Parts: sequence; C-alpha cells; structure tokens
Amino acid sequence: YGKNTIKFLRLHKEGKKHFVKEVEVCAHLRLTSPQEYLDGNNSLVIPTDTIKNIVLVLAKKKGIPSLEEFAIDICNHFMTTFCQVAYVKTYVQEVPWQRLHEDGVPHIHSFICVPDGIRFCEAEQCRNGPLIVFAGIKDLKLMKTTQSGFEGFYKNEHTTLPERHDRILCGELFCKWSYGECKDFDFNCIWKKIRECILEAFAGPPDCGEYSPSYQKTVNCIQMLVLSRVSQVQVIEVVLNNTFYNVVDMKNLGVTNDKEVLVPVEAPYGSCACTLGRK
Amino acid sequence: YGKNTIKFLRLHKEGKKHFVKEVEVCAHLRLTSPQEYLDGNNSLVIPTDTIKNIVLVLAKKKGIPSLEEFAIDICNHFMTTFCQVAYVKTYVQEVPWQRLHEDGVPHIHSFICVPDGIRFCEAEQCRNGPLIVFAGIKDLKLMKTTQSGFEGFYKNEHTTLPERHDRILCGELFCKWSYGECKDFDFNCIWKKIRECILEAFAGPPDCGEYSPSYQKTVNCIQMLVLSRVSQVQVIEVVLNNTFYNVVDMKNLGVTNDKEVLVPVEAPYGSCACTLGRK
Amino acid sequence: YGKNTIKFLRLHKEGKKHFVKEVEVCAHLRLTSPQEYLDGNNSLVIPTDTIKNIVLVLAKKKGIPSLEEFAIDICNHFMTTFCQVAYVKTYVQEVPWQRLHEDGVPHIHSFICVPDGIRFCEAEQCRNGPLIVFAGIKDLKLMKTTQSGFEGFYKNEHTTLPERHDRILCGELFCKWSYGECKDFDFNCIWKKIRECILEAFAGPPDCGEYSPSYQKTVNCIQMLVLSRVSQVQVIEVVLNNTFYNVVDMKNLGVTNDKEVLVPVEAPYGSCACTLGRK
Amino acid sequence: YGKNTIKFLRLHKEGKKHFVKEVEVCAHLRLTSPQEYLDGNNSLVIPTDTIKNIVLVLAKKKGIPSLEEFAIDICNHFMTTFCQVAYVKTYVQEVPWQRLHEDGVPHIHSFICVPDGIRFCEAEQCRNGPLIVFAGIKDLKLMKTTQSGFEGFYKNEHTTLPERHDRILCGELFCKWSYGECKDFDFNCIWKKIRECILEAFAGPPDCGEYSPSYQKTVNCIQMLVLSRVSQVQVIEVVLNNTFYNVVDMKNLGVTNDKEVLVPVEAPYGSCACTLGRK
Repeated sequence: YGKNTIKFLRLHKEGKKHFVKEVEVCAHLRLTSPQEYLDGNNSLVIPTDTIKNIVLVLAKKKGIPSLEEFAIDICNHFMTTFCQVAYVKTYVQEVPWQRLHEDGVPHIHSFICVPDGIRFCEAEQCRNGPLIVFAGIKDLKLMKTTQSGFEGFYKNEHTTLPERHDRILCGELFCKWSYGECKDFDFNCIWKKIRECILEAFAGPPDCGEYSPSYQKTVNCIQMLVLSRVSQVQVIEVVLNNTFYNVVDMKNLGVTNDKEVLVPVEAPYGSCACTLGRK
Repeated sequence: YGKNTIKFLRLHKEGKKHFVKEVEVCAHLRLTSPQEYLDGNNSLVIPTDTIKNIVLVLAKKKGIPSLEEFAIDICNHFMTTFCQVAYVKTYVQEVPWQRLHEDGVPHIHSFICVPDGIRFCEAEQCRNGPLIVFAGIKDLKLMKTTQSGFEGFYKNEHTTLPERHDRILCGELFCKWSYGECKDFDFNCIWKKIRECILEAFAGPPDCGEYSPSYQKTVNCIQMLVLSRVSQVQVIEVVLNNTFYNVVDMKNLGVTNDKEVLVPVEAPYGSCACTLGRK
Repeated sequence: YGKNTIKFLRLHKEGKKHFVKEVEVCAHLRLTSPQEYLDGNNSLVIPTDTIKNIVLVLAKKKGIPSLEEFAIDICNHFMTTFCQVAYVKTYVQEVPWQRLHEDGVPHIHSFICVPDGIRFCEAEQCRNGPLIVFAGIKDLKLMKTTQSGFEGFYKNEHTTLPERHDRILCGELFCKWSYGECKDFDFNCIWKKIRECILEAFAGPPDCGEYSPSYQKTVNCIQMLVLSRVSQVQVIEVVLNNTFYNVVDMKNLGVTNDKEVLVPVEAPYGSCACTLGRK
Repeated sequence: YGKNTIKFLRLHKEGKKHFVKEVEVCAHLRLTSPQEYLDGNNSLVIPTDTIKNIVLVLAKKKGIPSLEEFAIDICNHFMTTFCQVAYVKTYVQEVPWQRLHEDGVPHIHSFICVPDGIRFCEAEQCRNGPLIVFAGIKDLKLMKTTQSGFEGFYKNEHTTLPERHDRILCGELFCKWSYGECKDFDFNCIWKKIRECILEAFAGPPDCGEYSPSYQKTVNCIQMLVLSRVSQVQVIEVVLNNTFYNVVDMKNLGVTNDKEVLVPVEAPYGSCACTLGRK
C-alpha cells in the first residue's frame, strides 16, 4: 500500500467574519493488484500528486464542516472514482487555531494556535465493506498534584518502588473512539462533549477531586464516563503516557522537602493503554 | 564558561488549593580564572550537581513567586556565595500549566498544559556590575487571514514574487524585553499586559483589523505599542518567523480558487527581527 | 496493557579493550486479568520500576551479545517468573556507537556515534505460544541521483504530474523481518548481511546501477534479494518514505537548469510499504 | 534584519560519475535604512523569494566546490549587487551524503546519509569591512568509556557529587573556527584535517588513550591541538554538551555492578564552552 500527507489551509467567510481550518491529511490506498510492486507496471498507480490534487479540490468544493465529514468525503471519492482501489483509509488532523479575543471580543480574522490537545479523525473502508469512522484527541497533557497513589502492587526481589498514597499523576493522553453507523452526527459537538468527559474523569469534582489508585484505573474511569455519557461511541481506546515525578531528597542538604520540590523521572517512563467497548 | 539545565516542579498550597510551577532553569557561570581549562585544575569548579542542588534548595526556600524573582534569587546567591564567579546568567522557562476548569469552576488541584506562547526570563550580572533582567515570550503562533500584503518592494532580474495586497500573515513570535532598574515590579502583571499588547498590535481592532504592509512593519507596531503602554520596558526585541502560504492554482483542475485553499511554503521560510529601545 | 522504556549502557572489557552497547528497551506486558483497570486492584501489577530493575539486572548478568538474544532473555524471564503475564513483547533499539579509528588503527576505548541506519529487534510471546523474533533497520537514508523514473501511471482529470524517466530517488527506509524457528542463529552476522542486501538492491551494480520504474518496484527488489540470499528470513516488510525533488525551473531567471539544481518537495510526501513472505 | 533558509540539491557529473551536495543556506541581510520597519516603505526590501532565486542561480552557475567558497560567493553577490545592503551573513550547512560502497567499490550514483558530525560554514561582511569566514562541525557525538575523571573540585554544603577517577566521558561537540585572511585555502582538506585533530585530542593514542581530568580540559586539548597543527585557524570555539552516566547501584538487587551497567542522567545536563585564539 502507499500513503501520503498533505498540509493545507481552508478559509471561508461569512460576511466579514473569517473562518480557518488548517489540516494535515494522510491518505492510505491499497490497490486490488500488487502488479506495480511485482512487475513495475504502473498502469493502475494513482500518483501522490494526483491524490494531493483530489484532496485539495474536495476541500475547495465541499469545505471542512468537520474533520470527520471531510474524511468521509475523501473515502467516498476514492471508492467511487477508482475501481482499482481495494481499501482506503483517511487520517485528518487539525492545527489548533483558535479565534483571537481582545478583552473578550472575538476578532473577525485573527487566530492563535493553542495546542492543548489535538483533534484528529480517521475514516476507513474496504471495497464492499462498511465505512468506519474514528475520532480522537492526542497530545493532551494533564496533571493532578494530589489525590493519586500507587499501593498494593506485586512485589518480589526486584521490587524497589515504595508504596505511595500522595503522588503526582501526570501524563499525555491519547484517546480514540469509533462511531457505529454514522448517521447525521454532529461530530463537532460530540467531540467537545467527549473532551469534557475526559477532563472531568481525570480530575474529579472541582472542589475535592477523586482519588486515583493507579494510572490504569484513571484510564478506565475516562472510558466508562465517555461510554455512559455519549451514546454514539461504540469502542474507546485510551493511552496514557506517564510522566513520573520524584520528591527530591534534601536531607543531605539540611532541608525538609514536604512534596514541594519534585523532579521528573525521564527513564523509565511508561504508558498504559486499554480498549473498551459496549457489550 | 559552563552552563547546565535543571527541570523541576514547585508545588505549594493555600488551604486546600494547589499551585504548581514547572520550570526549566539554565545557569551559566564564568569563573575569574580559566585554570580548569588550561591546567586541568578543578579547585574552583562548581560542579553541575552542586548547581542543581542550589537551584532546588532556593526553589524550596523561596518559592517561585515569579520567574523573574526566582532568576534574580539565583543570580544573587551565586554572586554572594562564590567569589570565584565572575559572571552569572540565569535563564528560567515555564511549562505552561493552567488550572483546569469544569463548567467555569476552577479545580483545586488539576492542571492542563496550554502552550500558546511560553514565558521565560533571564537575569545576568557581572561581578561589580548591575543586575539586568529580561523577560519574554516565545513559540507564540499567530495568523491573520486578511489585512496583510507585500507591495512596492525592490525588483531586479532575480525577482519572481508577485505583489500581493491580500495575503495570509502567519508566524511564530519571539519577543524579549529588558527592564531598567528593577524595583518592586509586579512581573506577572507586566508580562500579561505585554502579551495583550502583542496580540492587539498583531491583530488590530477586533471588528476590522489593521492593514500590515509587511512582516517588518508588524514587528515594529508590536514594539511601538509595548513601549508606549508599558513604561518599565527599556528595550524590546521581536523576531517573527514567517510561514508563507500560497493560494493553490486550480485552473488546470477546472476549479476557481478564490483564496480558499492555500498550502504552506516550507522553503524558503524567513524571519525578520528588530530591536528597539527608548531614546 | 502497559509498556515502558529504559535506556542504559552496557560495558564490558576483554583485556584492555572496551566494548559498549547503549540500548533503549521497551517492554510491553499484558496481564491475564484486567482487574487493575476495572477495580483498581493492583495486586498483580508489576511496576515500571520493577521492570526497569529486571532489565538492568539481566543486562548485568547476561550481557548483550546481540540485541536479539537480549530481547529473548527478557521475554523468557517475564514468562517464567510471573504467572500473571499473558503476553510480553520486548523491543530493543541500539544507539549506533562505532569504535573510533585513528589512521586506520582502532581505539581501545573511544567511540563515535554514526547513525546511518538504526538496528532494532523485537521478541514477543503469548503464554503457551511460540517465541517470535523480529529484527530490523530504520532511519536509513538513501539516494540515487539517476536510474529512476515514474511513467505509465493511471491518469484522469486530477492528474498534473508529468512522466519522468530520470528523476532522483531518495527516501528513508524502514525494514523489518521475522525469523522462523530461532535456533542458534548468528544474529549479528545475519543483520549485517541483510543490510548489505538492502544497499545492493537499492543501488544496483556500482558501475551502472539498475533502473527503478517506481518506489514500489525498488521496495520489492529489496525484499526479493533478502529472501533469496538469507534463508533465515521468513517474512520481510519494507517501508520507504519518499522525499521528492523537483528540478527548479530557471527559465524566468535566464538560466538553463539541466537537472543540476533541485529542491525537496516537502508536501505531499508519501511512503510505500509492502510485506512479503515465503510461499 | 531579516534572514531566510533555502534547502536544495546540487548535482554534477564527471563522465558517468555523479556528485551531490545537499545544503541548507541561511542568508541574513541588514539594510542601510530601517524604513521598512518604521514607515512600512518596502522600496529597498529584497524579498525572501528573490534571495532564494539568487542562491539557486549562484549554485547553478558556480557549483559548490566547498561550502566556504559558496558562502563567499553569496556574500560577494549581495555586497556588489545591492547598495542598500549594509551587512550580509551567509550560513551554509551540509546534509552528510556519502558515496555508497559495495564490497569496497564506490557506486557511481548512489549515496547514503551518514550524520557523524555535520559540516557548516559562515561568511560575513559589513559594507567596507573585511570578509570573514568561519567553518565548523556540529552534532558530533563521542564517548570514552574510561580515562576520564573529575576530582578536586570546589566543595561546600551544597555538594553531593562524589569524586570520580574512572567515569564515562560522553558528549556532543560543536566546534567553530575562523580563518584569517582567506587566500586560496583548500577548505575541504583543512576541514578533514581539523576533524581528525578533534577525534585525536578527544580520544588520545589508540592503544592507551589519555586521561581527562574534566570536560573543560578536554575542550582545551582539542583547541590546542587544532591551533598547533592547522596554521590557517585563527580562533577556535568548542562547546561540549555533556551526557552524564551513573553506575546503577544494584546492591539492593543482590548484584555487584562494577561499572558494567550505567544509565544516562537526563537532568541536570551541562555544557562547557571555550573560545581560544592565537596570541
């Protein structure tokens, strides 16, 4: 198979107000015959350059109402136009431009890049198969400074980690979910709702938080809350890349450090991942 | 000279509410004698490990009320403690953790990383010289989708660029300013005010913007506005790394593209920089 | 499941001669029960810190005769020591330190980092299943300045790419293969042989090269040569990330450019991939 | 001032043999008048696009016999063509393509990227001033597994580092030197000679090495050797970014670790730098 990546900007105006979407599109194609690999016969090969043109023309003609709708448009185009395509997958990722505000007033044509979690989606289809749509958020960095511990774990002669009931929980979240039959979903609205669920499940109530006994349990809480609140989600995968912090031992320096100064532990770093679906 | 980098987290509590600062500190030292280079005599050398300990102990004892106050504390410590230090420079950069909000309610101990411009500062001092403080913002990505052009430039036989009066202006800003005599400035407050000036000068009024005839002129507008509004700033340097976007020519594809689809031009990319002080 | 990454250096001496391996080990574990996710019950969880200790102790006790043997050692240790482990995968990657030579004389304890392709391997095992070993090379950047073209491809109304019979072929190779039943293979020797096959198949004979009608065909040539020369390889996957170069049109600048000055095309960039096994 | 970056490939043939240089050129210009900043008057501004065209045309017409000659050509062109240019600096950096060899036979048109130190140069000139040429190497990673220590350093109540007489010395070298009056130097030959000096001074004799009492002293040894062997070098700056490795304490794991397993210390990391000239 082959894939390629295209970056571009899509502008549109409503009156004098400007709207901008900057996206990176990655299209994977697999052809029905591998003859270009085996025989060097290129007659069915759709060049990268053509794929780029198609993506740009679709963006011009249809706009990008949501990443998901655009990914679906691209899949449909390849499946209906090229009978030599056996499989197509489209990945679309957004540059997080947000409208600039001055004293609370939105600016009509100025934007600032705010990368607090990157939105992406995927649409994939095999010939004669259903169109499957995924959406997700990545590079979302979160931290809880208390209400987290790690105790009661398995111990043997290689164990040196002490038990802790008040550590820092910090990590980078990757979250990807699939929709079932894609009807007329409001993908933008659902995405925002899921992002809120993630933050709420990670942090707990604003006034007191909620104790996390492990990264794994926090991953599960996120999944459970999303599945319970957002009926359109069928399966949800969460990966949490952990950043550990150690309280600096300052005894030799004549100072008591009561979890006030901590250093990140670069290695080992870990991640935990889980995929959860509906019964 | 030598320098080194230390990353750590400083927590503190007010009642049940948690506050977090994660910083990267870089300390440069130059000694009065270069004997460790020339003779391999280490007797005056302050090891990296000791510098790290000092920075962490200062963070514990004094906290980080502002990056600038912390940088000043470090400079002062090295100058007063080590008579073999001829020069010290401290660079402090912040990881942009922001308090998480749920439905507008601030969370007492959860944070999200929002890198929409990174705050940093520098303090430097030669023995017997004044302590000079700089502050700045970097990695601030901004875009205007209209009200920008580039016309009337110098032309010769190597010119192929067409004149444009409605292009995209997009770039990554680096901005660094120096304070004069550092009295009891409210560094946090000043920094926020300067950030607002930058955004305002870049974007212009929210309802109509302001025409930019060049990246250079936009750089100058930012400097002028900061100098006029913030009396504590003595000199201000602005560097704008430009990202150019080309309107895709779709004529061969049978489509009219009225500045709706644009692609970033990876190379050449440029930057313009200017340093401006008070008379 | 969970995974984590450990970086370390393993030294050993033979007489006065030093040998060094710096590796990054990534261990994935899946437990038989997901109770730590669902119930927050950590009693079977093997902490990241323990995994790190095990990897370091194994490195100390067994050394790293080859990446593959070390990966196998780790897998075996986890499977035989922890009955709660249902699946283990170990990825080992090497920092490419090479012995320094002065006027052709090898240095007994000095090394230089030469990243012209990174060696890695993987070993994975399900409980009661076979141990499967993969090896590979990544980040190998190669270029042919001639003997490459792309013609006869599929064309429609979105095609703008001209046919070319003398273009640059440049890309970054990723190559991963699996071994069958792992007997007493000399993994270091096989790896070097496969690397040579890749270079030979990419470049063709030194005096004339060999025409490549497409990236895809070059990928296939690499696979065919490896399978024909190295009997231990069962399946081989090759991914070639293409870098395209365009001949700069200098007509408007009054200069003829006969494929002498070219610029890289940043987007779209593509990749082609293929997996090939024995019948 | 403004600067911009251009990446391109320059090919040439001698008979059937191909030669390739891929470079990144960065040109900084300062104009005699800052009117484009202050007034938005662009009439003297040389657009990025024009600078790119000039660099590409020069590469086509003059080739790139050495990075230094090409950088000088660019400086000369800007100074003699544009009277509004007050200052020009050109930075040229090479992508380290090396000719591929098969069984020791050089290939006529195939290359492999081997980034074991990146060659760069700079040429700068003020109007009516001399043309100054610098050259250098960067990203050169070296390691000595013995013959390095750090003892007798300054100690106080913040000192926790133990003295060591057999540690790992590992780091990334940056080295930049200036030539005096640039006559008809063979820049390619000098550069290779200096690279050899650096390696020799870092490592010492191949059969026994040479003891380094500190990173600083190693930096000085490199400078002294280059200045003594290469008469064309006037001033030389060396920066060594240190990577520290700690011997893992395995006592709690029941294992003796005699400097066999070490882990890199990510923070603090340091660097030491020195600039040395002739008397």
